[in-house]
Amino acid sequence: MKQLITLISALGILVACAEKKEQATTHSNSLSSEEKIDSTHIKNFFNTALTQGKSYEWLRDLTQNIGGRLSGSPEAEKAVVWGEKLMKEVGLDSVWLQPVMVPHWVRGEKEVANYTVNGVKKDVPVCALGFSIATPAKGITSEVIEVKSVEEAEKRGNELKDKIVFFNGAFDNTLINTFEAYGGCVGQRFSGARVCGKYGAKGVIVRSMTNGIDDYPHTGSMGYGDIPKNEYIPAAAISSRAAENLSKDLKENPNLKFYFKQSCETLPDAPSFNVVGEIKGSENPDKIMVVGGHLDSWDLGEGAHDDGTGIVHSLEVAYLFKKNNIQPKNTLRIVFFMNEENGLRGAKEYARLAKLNNENHIGGLESDSGGHTPRGFSIDANEKNTLLVKSWNKLLAPYGLHDLTTGGSGADVGPLKDDHVTLVGYRPDSQRYFDYHHTETDTFDKVNKRELEMGSASMASLIYLMDKYLYTKEPIKP
Amino acid sequence: MKQLITLISALGILVACAEKKEQATTHSNSLSSEEKIDSTHIKNFFNTALTQGKSYEWLRDLTQNIGGRLSGSPEAEKAVVWGEKLMKEVGLDSVWLQPVMVPHWVRGEKEVANYTVNGVKKDVPVCALGFSIATPAKGITSEVIEVKSVEEAEKRGNELKDKIVFFNGAFDNTLINTFEAYGGCVGQRFSGARVCGKYGAKGVIVRSMTNGIDDYPHTGSMGYGDIPKNEYIPAAAISSRAAENLSKDLKENPNLKFYFKQSCETLPDAPSFNVVGEIKGSENPDKIMVVGGHLDSWDLGEGAHDDGTGIVHSLEVAYLFKKNNIQPKNTLRIVFFMNEENGLRGAKEYARLAKLNNENHIGGLESDSGGHTPRGFSIDANEKNTLLVKSWNKLLAPYGLHDLTTGGSGADVGPLKDDHVTLVGYRPDSQRYFDYHHTETDTFDKVNKRELEMGSASMASLIYLMDKYLYTKEPIKP
Repeated sequence: MKQLITLISALGILVACAEKKEQATTHSNSLSSEEKIDSTHIKNFFNTALTQGKSYEWLRDLTQNIGGRLSGSPEAEKAVVWGEKLMKEVGLDSVWLQPVMVPHWVRGEKEVANYTVNGVKKDVPVCALGFSIATPAKGITSEVIEVKSVEEAEKRGNELKDKIVFFNGAFDNTLINTFEAYGGCVGQRFSGARVCGKYGAKGVIVRSMTNGIDDYPHTGSMGYGDIPKNEYIPAAAISSRAAENLSKDLKENPNLKFYFKQSCETLPDAPSFNVVGEIKGSENPDKIMVVGGHLDSWDLGEGAHDDGTGIVHSLEVAYLFKKNNIQPKNTLRIVFFMNEENGLRGAKEYARLAKLNNENHIGGLESDSGGHTPRGFSIDANEKNTLLVKSWNKLLAPYGLHDLTTGGSGADVGPLKDDHVTLVGYRPDSQRYFDYHHTETDTFDKVNKRELEMGSASMASLIYLMDKYLYTKEPIKP
Repeated sequence: MKQLITLISALGILVACAEKKEQATTHSNSLSSEEKIDSTHIKNFFNTALTQGKSYEWLRDLTQNIGGRLSGSPEAEKAVVWGEKLMKEVGLDSVWLQPVMVPHWVRGEKEVANYTVNGVKKDVPVCALGFSIATPAKGITSEVIEVKSVEEAEKRGNELKDKIVFFNGAFDNTLINTFEAYGGCVGQRFSGARVCGKYGAKGVIVRSMTNGIDDYPHTGSMGYGDIPKNEYIPAAAISSRAAENLSKDLKENPNLKFYFKQSCETLPDAPSFNVVGEIKGSENPDKIMVVGGHLDSWDLGEGAHDDGTGIVHSLEVAYLFKKNNIQPKNTLRIVFFMNEENGLRGAKEYARLAKLNNENHIGGLESDSGGHTPRGFSIDANEKNTLLVKSWNKLLAPYGLHDLTTGGSGADVGPLKDDHVTLVGYRPDSQRYFDYHHTETDTFDKVNKRELEMGSASMASLIYLMDKYLYTKEPIKP
C-alpha cells in the first residue's frame, strides 16, 4: 500500500483530492442557509449541463448543417426555421417569429489582392468588409499610403488622393481582455473608408482585427455614414501576416502598387425574423427576463463562437430550468436575435415592440463573447442592482465566474436599457476569441464541449438568481 | 458623430472601454504603495511575455522538431541537448546536466485490438500502458468481464480467471476541476493489472482517462507493484468511444471474445539527465527557489501540454527576469526534470542531491497542468506561508489568477517537501486538458500563444513575490 500511495502521489492524484476537500469546505462554511439552497440549484444546473446538456449537439447541427448565415441569406432563413423548431422541442410555453426587415449585403465572387516587389508577385489573403461597395470589375491598382488609425488618416488629408489607404493599426497585445484591444482598433475597420473617401482615396485595406499573426482575412462591418454616394470607396480586410509583410515591403518599395478586386453589393432589404419563445412566470407573468444571442453570423466560417454558442447557451437556459423543474417567478423569454452583425435590426425591432406593447422587461442577459471557459459577467444596471448582482460572487466563484464587473451587456439586449432594467453580458475567457472572429476558422471544432456547457449553466445560474432576487414592481416607462 | 457612436456601440466597443476604465480604477485604489510597485513589476512581466515572449517559438521547436520524448528514447536525449543549449542562450549564470538513470520502456509495434459481434468485426483504438508487458506474439483472445473500479475487480476475485478484465470507470464530468475526475479514475489504469494478475486474468483493458467520448487511446503509467513476475499480465488503454461501444455490445453478447496484441517491453535502465540552470541570488545566493516542469513526455503525441508548456513556462520565468532587469535576491534555479511520466527518477535524484549537498531550498514552483488560460496556484506550505501567498490575491486577480488554493504542488518539486519549503503548482484552466492528455493529439497546435505566454508571466509574478516576501533564514534540515 505504501508503494502504491507513493506511486499514485507521483501521478498527481493526491494533489487533486486535497484540493477538492478544501474547496468544498470553504464553500459550504461561508454560505447562509438561503444561499445554500441557491448553491444547490446552481450545482444542479452545472451537473445537468455537464452530463445531459444539449448545447453541443445543437451547435453541431447549426454550424455544420446550416453553416454561416449572414442576414438575408438562405442560410439565415434556414436558421430561423431551425430555431423555431428547436424552441418548440425544448417545450417552451409559446414560440413565435417576430418579423423584421434586414440589410442584404452579398459578398459576390472570391476577392483577389496582390502586389509585386522585386519581380515577385505576392498574393494577399483578402475579403471585402460588410456593406462595402465593389471595386470596378477590373479591380483597383494604386500606390499605398500606410496609416495606423483614422486620426492619422484625417491628418494626412489630401495626401490620400488616388491612393489605396492601408490601415495597419495592430491590437495592443498587453491588454488582458482582448475585447479592449479590439475596441482600440476597430474604428479603422468601421470608419476608414468613410474618412478616406472624402479625400479622394481609391480604396481602403485594413489589417485584420486579431491578436495574432495569421493568414486569414477577418471580415466585419464598415459604414459610409452620411457621406455622399460619390465618395463611397471599397474597403477590404487583409490578413495580419500580409499586413506585416506589406508594411515591410513598403519601407523598401514605397511606390509599389497594390491591386484588389471585389464584387460585393448591397441588395434591397430582405424579410427575416427574430425567433422568440418563453416560459411564463408563475408569480409575475408580466415581468420579463430576456436571454439571448444572435442567430445571424458572418458568411466566411460557420458562426460557431460568433454567435452559435450564444444561441445554444440561451436555449439551454430554458432547457436547464425545465430539466431541473425550476419554474421561474417572472417570465423567462429566449430570443434568437437576427442581424446583430450588420445592422442590429432584430434588436431594435424587439425593443421597439417591447415599448409599443408596454412590456415590462426587468432583466436581460446576452451571450455574444464566444463559448470559451467561464470567467464572469458584465453588469449594466443601476447602482442598487449592480451591487446585488455583485453580491452573488461567492455563489458563482466555484465555477470560475470571478469577474463581476460594471460595463456594457451586449448589442442585442442593449436597446432595452432603462434605469429599471438590469442588463448583463456573459463574459467567457477572451484569449482565443479573436483567433477565429469573423474568419473562415470560426468553426464547430474550435468549441470545447465542457466549456460550452459550463457557459449554459453559468447563464442559467445568473437567471435563477435574477428571478429570485431581482425584480421591480414599477412598470417600464411608456 | 452621433451616428458613429450608435454604430460603434453596436460593435461592442463602448462595452469594452467602460469595463476597462472600471477595472483600472478598482485595481489601483485598493493597493498600498509597496503593492503598487509589485503591481508594476507584474504588469511588466505580462507586457514582456505578451509582446516579446519566446515561449511559443521554443515550444514549437521542442514539439515539432523533437516531438514525443519518452524517457530513454533518442528524442529524450535530443531534448536534453536542446534544453541545455536554450538555457545558455537565455543567459543563465550557470547551466549543468545532472545525470540520472531512467526506466527504458518501449512500445514496440503498433498495438491491435478488435472483437466481432453479429458477424461484424470491430477494430478498437488501443495502446499499451507504460511498463506493461507484451502479450504473446499472437495476442490474447478471451471473454471479457466489465468492472468499474479496482475495488469491484477485487470483489469479483476468482471470476476474473482467464478473462480479459475491462475497466470501464468513467470520469465524473460534474467535477469542475477535471484533475479531480482524473484522480477518481486513474487507479484502475495504474493498479488494474496488478490486482487482476493474482486472480489469473489474462489481460486488462482500461477505458481511456478523458472527460469526453473520442477515438484516441490515452496511454499512461501502470505498475505491477511487488507481485511475482508470473502474475504480470498485459494492460492496454482503449478509446472512450470504444469503451462505450464494448460495454453496450457486452450487454447483448456477454460471451463475445476480445483480442489484443502488443509488443512493448522494459529494457535495462538508460542514462539521462535533468537540465539545470540558475541565476545567482544577489543577497542570499545559498537560498534556492526552484522552477520547473518535465522534459520527458509520452511517445504518442508531441508532449505539448504535457509538459512542453511547463518547460517553456519555466525557462521564460528566467527570461522575463532578465528582460526586465530584475535580479532575484535568492537564487532562481530552473530545472527541466527527466522522467516524470514513468518513474520520477529525475525529481528523486534532484531532491537526493539537494539533501546530500545541504542545499537550502526555500521554494518550488512547478508547471505540469498544461498551457491553458491562467486560473491560479495551488499551495503546499506551512500555514504562515500559505496565508502569505494567498494575500497576493489582489495583485494576481487582474490576470485571471483568482484560485489560490491549498493542495499539492507538483510531482517533480514534491520530493523537496519540508516545513520550511513553500511549494506551489501553477494551475491553468483544466477543461480541455484531458482531451489531449497522453494521446497523439497532444500537439503544438492545441496550445494558444497568449494563454501560454500568460502562464509564463503568471509564474514569473509568483516567483517575484516569493523572492521578495518569502524566505527563511533556517537551513534545510540535514
